Amino acid sequence: MKVGFVGQGKMGVPMTLNLIWDGHEVTVFNRTREKTQAAAEEGARVVESPAQAADGADVVVTILSDDAAVEAVVFAEDGVLGGLGKGAVHASMSTIGVATTRRLAEAHQAAGQGFVAAPVFGRPEAAEASKLWVVAAGPADMVERCQPVFAAVGYGVSKVGEDATRAAVLKLASNFVLASAIEALAEAIALVRKHGIDPRELLDVVNTRVIRSPFYENYGTIITDERYEPAGFSLELGLKDVTLALRAAEESGASLPLAALVRDRFQTAVSRGWGEIDWAGLGRVSSDAAGLGSARGAD
Amino acid sequence: MKVGFVGQGKMGVPMTLNLIWDGHEVTVFNRTREKTQAAAEEGARVVESPAQAADGADVVVTILSDDAAVEAVVFAEDGVLGGLGKGAVHASMSTIGVATTRRLAEAHQAAGQGFVAAPVFGRPEAAEASKLWVVAAGPADMVERCQPVFAAVGYGVSKVGEDATRAAVLKLASNFVLASAIEALAEAIALVRKHGIDPRELLDVVNTRVIRSPFYENYGTIITDERYEPAGFSLELGLKDVTLALRAAEESGASLPLAALVRDRFQTAVSRGWGEIDWAGLGRVSSDAAGLGSARGAD
Amino acid sequence: MKVGFVGQGKMGVPMTLNLIWDGHEVTVFNRTREKTQAAAEEGARVVESPAQAADGADVVVTILSDDAAVEAVVFAEDGVLGGLGKGAVHASMSTIGVATTRRLAEAHQAAGQGFVAAPVFGRPEAAEASKLWVVAAGPADMVERCQPVFAAVGYGVSKVGEDATRAAVLKLASNFVLASAIEALAEAIALVRKHGIDPRELLDVVNTRVIRSPFYENYGTIITDERYEPAGFSLELGLKDVTLALRAAEESGASLPLAALVRDRFQTAVSRGWGEIDWAGLGRVSSDAAGLGSARGAD
Amino acid sequence: MKVGFVGQGKMGVPMTLNLIWDGHEVTVFNRTREKTQAAAEEGARVVESPAQAADGADVVVTILSDDAAVEAVVFAEDGVLGGLGKGAVHASMSTIGVATTRRLAEAHQAAGQGFVAAPVFGRPEAAEASKLWVVAAGPADMVERCQPVFAAVGYGVSKVGEDATRAAVLKLASNFVLASAIEALAEAIALVRKHGIDPRELLDVVNTRVIRSPFYENYGTIITDERYEPAGFSLELGLKDVTLALRAAEESGASLPLAALVRDRFQTAVSRGWGEIDWAGLGRVSSDAAGLGSARGAD
Repeated sequence: MKVGFVGQGKMGVPMTLNLIWDGHEVTVFNRTREKTQAAAEEGARVVESPAQAADGADVVVTILSDDAAVEAVVFAEDGVLGGLGKGAVHASMSTIGVATTRRLAEAHQAAGQGFVAAPVFGRPEAAEASKLWVVAAGPADMVERCQPVFAAVGYGVSKVGEDATRAAVLKLASNFVLASAIEALAEAIALVRKHGIDPRELLDVVNTRVIRSPFYENYGTIITDERYEPAGFSLELGLKDVTLALRAAEESGASLPLAALVRDRFQTAVSRGWGEIDWAGLGRVSSDAAGLGSARGAD
Repeated sequence: MKVGFVGQGKMGVPMTLNLIWDGHEVTVFNRTREKTQAAAEEGARVVESPAQAADGADVVVTILSDDAAVEAVVFAEDGVLGGLGKGAVHASMSTIGVATTRRLAEAHQAAGQGFVAAPVFGRPEAAEASKLWVVAAGPADMVERCQPVFAAVGYGVSKVGEDATRAAVLKLASNFVLASAIEALAEAIALVRKHGIDPRELLDVVNTRVIRSPFYENYGTIITDERYEPAGFSLELGLKDVTLALRAAEESGASLPLAALVRDRFQTAVSRGWGEIDWAGLGRVSSDAAGLGSARGAD
Repeated sequence: MKVGFVGQGKMGVPMTLNLIWDGHEVTVFNRTREKTQAAAEEGARVVESPAQAADGADVVVTILSDDAAVEAVVFAEDGVLGGLGKGAVHASMSTIGVATTRRLAEAHQAAGQGFVAAPVFGRPEAAEASKLWVVAAGPADMVERCQPVFAAVGYGVSKVGEDATRAAVLKLASNFVLASAIEALAEAIALVRKHGIDPRELLDVVNTRVIRSPFYENYGTIITDERYEPAGFSLELGLKDVTLALRAAEESGASLPLAALVRDRFQTAVSRGWGEIDWAGLGRVSSDAAGLGSARGAD
Repeated sequence: MKVGFVGQGKMGVPMTLNLIWDGHEVTVFNRTREKTQAAAEEGARVVESPAQAADGADVVVTILSDDAAVEAVVFAEDGVLGGLGKGAVHASMSTIGVATTRRLAEAHQAAGQGFVAAPVFGRPEAAEASKLWVVAAGPADMVERCQPVFAAVGYGVSKVGEDATRAAVLKLASNFVLASAIEALAEAIALVRKHGIDPRELLDVVNTRVIRSPFYENYGTIITDERYEPAGFSLELGLKDVTLALRAAEESGASLPLAALVRDRFQTAVSRGWGEIDWAGLGRVSSDAAGLGSARGAD
């Protein structure tokens, strides 16, 4: 299949490689051209604009850092919207807001093109291993059209309806639930450390015996070890996603006090200059607010 | 082994029965005598005071609703402290505060008695099935002495040190982590419902694919179905536990903004008259704050 | 002076009348035409579009309910931007966001027109009495040009700089401070009521003796008396303004946990259907969360 | 009148001097004896125990740092309770909790002594100038008995009822309202600073024009100037008082989310080592969370 791919960041590169290795004919675009080198070496064609990446593609994928970046590559003069053929599909695989998702769906529909919102779960390691999970929403035939792409990058798809915004809402609500779990771990770990208890004992009790989640195990360990670098998913992205979840709540009139609190913790971390570390770095906010030095010595 | 058992509530009754069925000689006390009937029918001796329950016991267990109740049965004139023999052990299996735990440990030590803090994880169904998990702290030989009791009521023990307060801290920190997960689910479910999405789709994405926790599955389903009665663990008890976690944080100087928020949600629920429903009833606070009627119709 | 006036809501009508009574030649536009009747009876010319209101005016004032409404009347085909003459000034007197303010300033500048952000403090009664306070930012000569308008509707002006966004930031930060004071009063009044104490005693102590503010006196009394209707400034508008303060914080990277909390309280109130009552209705959220019935009997 | 005075801290010393200068015969006790020197030089008799300070006094005043300190001087073997004569009165002028206040009232009543809760408003400078405001609750004749003391240290008294706990509730609710105002100022000032605006402009708008409170003026200026030392009232005391307000809310079943948030901010400040600076130091928490350096240069 002919696949256009816009965005060669931490997620985009391994996804592109997996598409190539799965036999697809891939055309890539990235604003910073040097990041397309890995894909080029594996045989991707590198082009000069999002429009060229979309041109002739069955499916054009975008995976970019935020809503503004997606809107830029889609609506620009030499953007995806202009280059994509009638009947071809734009699969938006970043986590973006509900309003932006709606705008994209409407614009593509008006242009006789397909649009599928298909944000993914998984950190860069999962992308490398083709182990992402896709949450897809859009017209059934369009989602079907994207299936080979999803198969190349992930191990499964939740199809959540015809309205693209549903995928956005579900992804944002999910990321908020995950961020809340990290914040709870961050605070609970600070609490037990203040009582002189090794956080591993906490994880052994609350996760091994009750919650039993690999997610808690992973993040509990990162916070315990204070291994916030390299970031799998940065604090800055965490801030973006919880902010978007709050926007979705504003739009629909839900009250999310916990999301507001977690957003503020991310904001504090980013404003203090920690935006590039892993979002587990909420642990640093809590340990700092508890007057704990770093457990690892020099910080 | 001779076991004294003080407290015949939702947890105490099945625990007592399991002790009897395991072959122990059990003496029970409960303030409201009629609740001792189930134990009496299985062969327990029913006595008139906590002191009598402790008298002659190898281990006396207390499992009561709050710190004040435990202090009352221990320090009263006819209390556990007065009745327990030298070298015998008091296993406190309720979830109680750090300061109370310290007070109990000191009082028993001064009296030449043993004290083990041994709060348990598990709802009444788990107690019935001998499937509690015990978090025990105290002098190693005393914990050893309690082993037959733990074996009768649970499927395992985390031994977390010699200082009894460690078990209290770990149990409270854990319950705070669990309560936070419920609050996050409550808010996220309200959010997706406001967007017209069935919360089961959210659980299918965030839990089945990422968190993979039976705890999330269970509570996510309770909130989705709004089946808050009968309560396995009530909102009132949730309020008590998160309040005690905050007390532990006060004592040690940790900042727990999320615990403060969750405590306020429990307080709101209790003040509005919902204290007796399951602590998953945080879902009602969120759905109400979002202007959602009950999903189950008449409420 | 020739003044165009767009917006005939609770604030717009008395401001328009004061302009007329001050001798200005006023042209008014309002989407719902019937609301222009009061102004028409006093001699205003009623027109069919924002462009017509702006056409020939020295200053065109907009005072509308939210950012979207202002953008609509300015950027529409028959909008203010199209109708306003070169060198004439748009004085935006609503409380709107920083980003919208910036957009307006840039658009007017590009069109060779002046723009002054001039949000006002004061409830409708103050507007009737020409007792608003204006916070104005924009090029000094443009602010000067608006002076006769400000003099007609208010008793003074804080000139806060050449950059229009400064007025927006200061107004939003101020409204957040005011909303926080109301929330604090709401919670403190619920607290003393739960202890059986008349809230008037609280006001007598904390305000009469320490804070000494007419604002606290006014809002403390409204909450004590639960006189939330008619609204001087609605909960819905409070929600809008604190949301915009949070947007300003997002843009600049400030952490505002109290603003996030207050926003959530407004959201809860609005989602529960109380959006039209006075923003002092935060008192209802707190009294409800405390399980207090209405102090005034039937509610 | 014969006055016993227990506590020679920042408030106790000037209050004692004013009592002496008003012609009262004053006996003082302080744990650290050297702090009694100022009073001794003005003619106070210095004694060795709280009991001796109370012995023979018409009124014995306590003003100490927290509940534990008050309970210690009252209930100790050589405490106030043992030394005070029948019919004499203990005026507790510290800000202490509702439960402690109730315990004191009951103990003194059982001993045939009077008890008046009489916490004061005002910083040390106000104490020096006899400009405190007293909030007094207790049996009317006992409050009357204390009148000469109140007259010597303050400029007026709010008499709030016969039940001593009422004074405690009103003082705690008031201090929470004040702390919330400081937190709002702290956040709003961080917000405008992030937008490059001098916070004095904010104060000029929101306080000079709307709130019109000397309290806001004072704290707004302290935060703007970052003059957190010397502390008039420390962050540690702010933490204590808001914690006690939350305890009062727990006891009565009120939900105070804003108090919970403000308490957490105080906790963060104290845990980070800033407990001794003025409670206006909440400004440092907000400016730090916004990534702002100190406005005063080296910090």
